[in-house]
Amino acid sequence: MKRTALALSMAGLLGLAVAAPKPAARPAKPTAVNTPKKTAQEILASSPASDWRALNPENTLLMELAAGTVIIELAPRFAPAHVANIRALARGGYWDGLAILRVQDNFVTQWGDPDGEDAAKARPLPAGANAKLPAEFSVPIDSIGKSAGFARLPDVDGWAPRTGFAEGFPVAADPASGKAWLAHCYGMVGAGRGDAVDSSNGSELYVVIGQAPRGLDLNITVVGRVIKGMELLSALPRGTAAMGFYDKPEQRTGIQRIRLMSEVPAAERPSLQVLRTDSTTWTQLLDARRYRGGWFVHSPGHIEICSASVPTRPAP
Amino acid sequence: MKRTALALSMAGLLGLAVAAPKPAARPAKPTAVNTPKKTAQEILASSPASDWRALNPENTLLMELAAGTVIIELAPRFAPAHVANIRALARGGYWDGLAILRVQDNFVTQWGDPDGEDAAKARPLPAGANAKLPAEFSVPIDSIGKSAGFARLPDVDGWAPRTGFAEGFPVAADPASGKAWLAHCYGMVGAGRGDAVDSSNGSELYVVIGQAPRGLDLNITVVGRVIKGMELLSALPRGTAAMGFYDKPEQRTGIQRIRLMSEVPAAERPSLQVLRTDSTTWTQLLDARRYRGGWFVHSPGHIEICSASVPTRPAP
Repeated sequence: MKRTALALSMAGLLGLAVAAPKPAARPAKPTAVNTPKKTAQEILASSPASDWRALNPENTLLMELAAGTVIIELAPRFAPAHVANIRALARGGYWDGLAILRVQDNFVTQWGDPDGEDAAKARPLPAGANAKLPAEFSVPIDSIGKSAGFARLPDVDGWAPRTGFAEGFPVAADPASGKAWLAHCYGMVGAGRGDAVDSSNGSELYVVIGQAPRGLDLNITVVGRVIKGMELLSALPRGTAAMGFYDKPEQRTGIQRIRLMSEVPAAERPSLQVLRTDSTTWTQLLDARRYRGGWFVHSPGHIEICSASVPTRPAP
Repeated sequence: MKRTALALSMAGLLGLAVAAPKPAARPAKPTAVNTPKKTAQEILASSPASDWRALNPENTLLMELAAGTVIIELAPRFAPAHVANIRALARGGYWDGLAILRVQDNFVTQWGDPDGEDAAKARPLPAGANAKLPAEFSVPIDSIGKSAGFARLPDVDGWAPRTGFAEGFPVAADPASGKAWLAHCYGMVGAGRGDAVDSSNGSELYVVIGQAPRGLDLNITVVGRVIKGMELLSALPRGTAAMGFYDKPEQRTGIQRIRLMSEVPAAERPSLQVLRTDSTTWTQLLDARRYRGGWFVHSPGHIEICSASVPTRPAP
């Protein structure tokens, strides 16, 4: 009986590998007037091909672990210098054989060079990668306008006066400061830094694995998001040293290699498509989460940018 | 160098087993005027004993897994019938030898009877446990007033007109409907249900392991929260069948037993204390998250009820 519990879950927007929700045994009584006519699965199933886009091989990282491949989409519009550096790091094989160093519950998984703090042992950066980059905590708000397909949400957000999606990423903005920035939602990837704001270079990356730590927004450079394989980074054993670092080297998860998709032979590239966030399908999906039917008896009438991840699908 | 990254993390409020943040190499430049004078660690270190409370053994579940013990605090003020039933289920050893059945990434971990859907094989409920309970999705807003020590947050929340903490739990409320309810934050525990609103009885429970699915609020009965051992439930392999259920029985994590703390000999009881959410210490901790110093160069000036979990500590 209870296998139907929570059937209409986050999964509806996190991928296509989910079951259609079981029909309610009796008519649902949503409290909102705006009950969706279609479920998320139905909306996706009827989406036009033009609402989907291919991955840009120059903006896609393939992180190979023993357990599988994590796919990361980079955000050059928001962090151009970091993304350029990450491309150079990947091209130079910088992460190959390095490791996941830190998993802090309800916060982040972080990877890089275990010897990164020891100048004598640290792996040198490959040719073309810079040791020092400017902080890229925000971009001018004008740069996320129509050219980026910015789709603003009408929903109130306590962290920023404006929120929405641009090019597949959750974005916050403040007209008063003139800034726009990537929001720290689940699955977002950022570049670890020390105390100095310009101390990140993209060689040590983290991904959010818990409640969105939006308090980090505008404090660190966000470079992209995981679009496939999150469970390979979120389900790792938590580290027990301070801040979730692993106590012992043998607790770490090795990184076999991280490649830029453009460097991978075409036949080996994953053929994923990503839903456009300036599409009608995406707008409908968000509305289906605001106004729920079926199992739900109360519709929140609300979402936030971290409530939903942009779906991917195998290229048809 | 980058080991200091993200030093001022969620962990500051998730427990005491965290390092003090490394001092900034140069003066921080917070943008908020209200920069805290003390860090979370300093606030906790100087908290008066009266700001802490003991666990109530009648409201505490000890869930024993091979990897360790998960401690769950129940919320009888919000779900009295479910909590009474859960006590009866634990007293009767209902979960002993059952299993974690479902782990859906960025959503929930769920446990109960693997044969629960097969009437012929389902484990019978023990004496004193009811098969059917009323839905307990909300309580009258009056019941979370001063008697429950409700501490309202001034911060805007998009999901509910009022939010705050009561008796250690994140609470949302709506004066227009006269309802108050427990919010689906990370670590909150609820009772799985089928399509009928009164189809949960507390025998199948779930815990939130990702971004707060606040859209579930008012749709299902929330019964408590995990106060220790979350990593034993959040880091489990994700299930690959629909909705994160495990495909095969051998993928499940067995539950050795779940006991009500009042049934456990006093010498075996964990001697944890929980910070009172109607205390000055808690108010100060929340403020230290709104207005950040040290590593942070931007203070959000904002928190939400799911931004922070109530700290515990070993009884002094």
